[in-house]
Amino acid sequence: MRVTDVLKEYDLSKLTVATVASHSALQIVHGAKKEGLRTLLIVKKDRYEFYSSFSHLVDSFIIVESWKEVLNEDVVNELLASNAVLVPHGSFVEYVGAQGLLDYPVPIFGSRKILLWESDQKKKMELLRRAGIKVPREYRSPDEVDGLVIVKLGGAKGGKGYFLAKTPEEVRRGLEALGNPSNYIIQEYVIGVPAYYHFFYSPIYNRLEITGMDIRYESNVDGLRRLPPELASGIRPSFTVVGNIPVVLRESLLIDVYKYGKSFVRTTEELLGEELVGPFCLESIITEEGEVVVFEFSGRIVAGTNLYVNGSPYSYLYWDEPMSAGRRVAREIRKARDSGRLEEVLR
Amino acid sequence: MRVTDVLKEYDLSKLTVATVASHSALQIVHGAKKEGLRTLLIVKKDRYEFYSSFSHLVDSFIIVESWKEVLNEDVVNELLASNAVLVPHGSFVEYVGAQGLLDYPVPIFGSRKILLWESDQKKKMELLRRAGIKVPREYRSPDEVDGLVIVKLGGAKGGKGYFLAKTPEEVRRGLEALGNPSNYIIQEYVIGVPAYYHFFYSPIYNRLEITGMDIRYESNVDGLRRLPPELASGIRPSFTVVGNIPVVLRESLLIDVYKYGKSFVRTTEELLGEELVGPFCLESIITEEGEVVVFEFSGRIVAGTNLYVNGSPYSYLYWDEPMSAGRRVAREIRKARDSGRLEEVLR
Amino acid sequence: MRVTDVLKEYDLSKLTVATVASHSALQIVHGAKKEGLRTLLIVKKDRYEFYSSFSHLVDSFIIVESWKEVLNEDVVNELLASNAVLVPHGSFVEYVGAQGLLDYPVPIFGSRKILLWESDQKKKMELLRRAGIKVPREYRSPDEVDGLVIVKLGGAKGGKGYFLAKTPEEVRRGLEALGNPSNYIIQEYVIGVPAYYHFFYSPIYNRLEITGMDIRYESNVDGLRRLPPELASGIRPSFTVVGNIPVVLRESLLIDVYKYGKSFVRTTEELLGEELVGPFCLESIITEEGEVVVFEFSGRIVAGTNLYVNGSPYSYLYWDEPMSAGRRVAREIRKARDSGRLEEVLR
Repeated sequence: MRVTDVLKEYDLSKLTVATVASHSALQIVHGAKKEGLRTLLIVKKDRYEFYSSFSHLVDSFIIVESWKEVLNEDVVNELLASNAVLVPHGSFVEYVGAQGLLDYPVPIFGSRKILLWESDQKKKMELLRRAGIKVPREYRSPDEVDGLVIVKLGGAKGGKGYFLAKTPEEVRRGLEALGNPSNYIIQEYVIGVPAYYHFFYSPIYNRLEITGMDIRYESNVDGLRRLPPELASGIRPSFTVVGNIPVVLRESLLIDVYKYGKSFVRTTEELLGEELVGPFCLESIITEEGEVVVFEFSGRIVAGTNLYVNGSPYSYLYWDEPMSAGRRVAREIRKARDSGRLEEVLR
Repeated sequence: MRVTDVLKEYDLSKLTVATVASHSALQIVHGAKKEGLRTLLIVKKDRYEFYSSFSHLVDSFIIVESWKEVLNEDVVNELLASNAVLVPHGSFVEYVGAQGLLDYPVPIFGSRKILLWESDQKKKMELLRRAGIKVPREYRSPDEVDGLVIVKLGGAKGGKGYFLAKTPEEVRRGLEALGNPSNYIIQEYVIGVPAYYHFFYSPIYNRLEITGMDIRYESNVDGLRRLPPELASGIRPSFTVVGNIPVVLRESLLIDVYKYGKSFVRTTEELLGEELVGPFCLESIITEEGEVVVFEFSGRIVAGTNLYVNGSPYSYLYWDEPMSAGRRVAREIRKARDSGRLEEVLR
Repeated sequence: MRVTDVLKEYDLSKLTVATVASHSALQIVHGAKKEGLRTLLIVKKDRYEFYSSFSHLVDSFIIVESWKEVLNEDVVNELLASNAVLVPHGSFVEYVGAQGLLDYPVPIFGSRKILLWESDQKKKMELLRRAGIKVPREYRSPDEVDGLVIVKLGGAKGGKGYFLAKTPEEVRRGLEALGNPSNYIIQEYVIGVPAYYHFFYSPIYNRLEITGMDIRYESNVDGLRRLPPELASGIRPSFTVVGNIPVVLRESLLIDVYKYGKSFVRTTEELLGEELVGPFCLESIITEEGEVVVFEFSGRIVAGTNLYVNGSPYSYLYWDEPMSAGRRVAREIRKARDSGRLEEVLR
């Protein structure tokens, strides 16, 4: 196995948590430092000034001109020479692409395959259905649309390009306006409130933890509500994620959500033939009957965890110290290393 | 007095904080552990898997088939044998009912009577009015309705069944749809923003503390705002509480809110003939003129405190350590025990 | 220089952080205590009961009948005798007025001039434009209005009196209803979501820190969204700030926001001829394209920082301990004193 070979060459006492300078990078390096690990950021030149203002959290930078260079041999070699473990996040997956990800020669924390499934809207929903998780109705073609739907493009683009429609004609016009993309799905728009659940599955501690929860803050849809209906009605809602707001869940719903999480972990292993490791997220609407309908998942750390750099109301139920998702990743790596089990958490 | 008799039999060095596994139970046992007290959860069989994943916080479980068993003699005996103090929350009151609560043979933290007043919508509003707290206009019958109103059912059902109306006819139709319940009130719908204030009244420290604040997250009403008016207008808003969002208050309003809290404590003692102890909550709308109008209260810990498992922006003004409402309860119990004043905080 | 003279008379070992009991006063005294400094609150008689419930945070009170007494000689003398440094906040500026502020004989933490610029809506926007920060279009007169606008009055009144309009006629009617004020601006209403960024510029550490972020909670506009469009349409939105909700920003946007912050610090020094010191805030709308449009700033601590009495997700990236904006102010004062550099942070 590739990871085994790479690890043989590594100086494990100098193991380095590396990631791409975006998304949740600050939290990841912050957490790694708290666990006593080295840190490395791959940073685009025009972002260097910003990230260097956090240089107390970063042992070394690899500066690139464009994100594509992440795939370059010299970047890869520098990562390997640094004894690096890559922590993938939404931007990383976007930058290296599906195939780049599968072939990437640097050890990655957690499952690579889940990231491929995540980037394909159809596979994504299939995994959720197979896990017995309640999902919204999916329409195979615009012609079937007979109620309110949301049309979503593939990839981790933060909601950009998503649109609402309620007739076949509106769906078709919307897709045309986006250049008729091929990777999209048409989902029933479930009436209720959004909520996003952050999990961490730990092979080392052999347990599933709830690490937090958030509501996405989306432009312009979360601003339109501040306009009187007569002013808002002319404006088309859009769903660009620009931030996250904290939330906690009614404890009785938490029980349902935790069951979903366990089922997700189990099903992922069955379908992908490889264990899920580390952070993931289930993304839901809760209806007025208190039913949790999951419309998406992320198979890696989500930006909503940036709320909890010093721990969340949930993480404190497990840990008697501040535990961000980023630190939780580093804790898992450190414990795995110290007990000779690194191969269980790296791919 | 009953509590006195029970306490005589207790081994106070093994005092156990007990509650029903729902609502804010995780926070309560987490807080009790931090105070060095024993913990016990009464858990329904189908929830055991979930709660047992927090077994590091729970010294023992009593597993029941249905919540009604909480009243059973063997459950009561096991609680007494465990030197248990019950911390009541919204679900507990719902499960045992008003009479079950009054007669329950296990010592309860805080006032039992306030929980009865809370469960009766009319008494609830009377207490607030007597405390000189500004409340919404109340309509005695549907016929009086001459503006926007919200109709609310009694009990701690988390907002389920609440509805808006603006004519006598709409109120009557709404009540019919709910099977013509008898325990309800018709309240003026005050225009403004909701905010919920968490308090803790401490006989031991002889002070009223503000422990936090939240906004309830309600399905579907907090989701409808994300729909364009032309799509939202057909859908009836509902008010099922599914979670809570943190908020802090303008400091000048905090002064008014604190006065309300003090007056509430004083009036409760006058009207009920028994001192309020521990957590309670005032639930308000703040108008555009900055007036705080209280439309409800809870005479016990509220689920909104689940936001603050590691302390709130307010609790840190009092305590130089993380202090959740759950831990605050345990701190009061521990201090009362250690100073021989348990009977002041238990009923 | 005046501050130099005053400091010569001060017993610096008894340096006292003083402020007016409102706005963010609790956080300021809490933070000062954690830094080992003395604290003093100037409090209105009718607020004394409330603030005295936090007497563990306040070494002494100066009780006044009305806020105007802040300017009185005996209050000033008591402050000087207490070796006081005043930390200005929104209410302080409102109470003493522009000229009172410039001439105030007690040392003030941070720039006085920036507070004057802040209180003038036109200068405020000019400073932002000069800093190269994207701002909304500004209309010089009601006649120019050709789309949705928001009309804002000067001063730190917490959004009271702001209104929306979309024609010259509507603007004129709105201004008339407010008694035709002279200090106002007419701004393009940018479609997107609001977000407020808290900064701290530190001459002592020679760096700009992001200390937090919030969304203002405004009555009634944030409540109207909970009404069905057919009920909400008759009600005029208002923008009275009553509280704050936490939020974190997409990391890629954080980079833009940090650039804005740095440019703001640089430009302030160029335009005002005096260095910015301590907390300030940029107040923005984020559009669906992810563009950050700043429509206002505050040149001092904002009430949104009250969310982070125990630190924010951002402050933990800099500090391995709880660091509120209030404590950050006190840390700067303490470090300046201990290194003989007080004159760099006081004016």
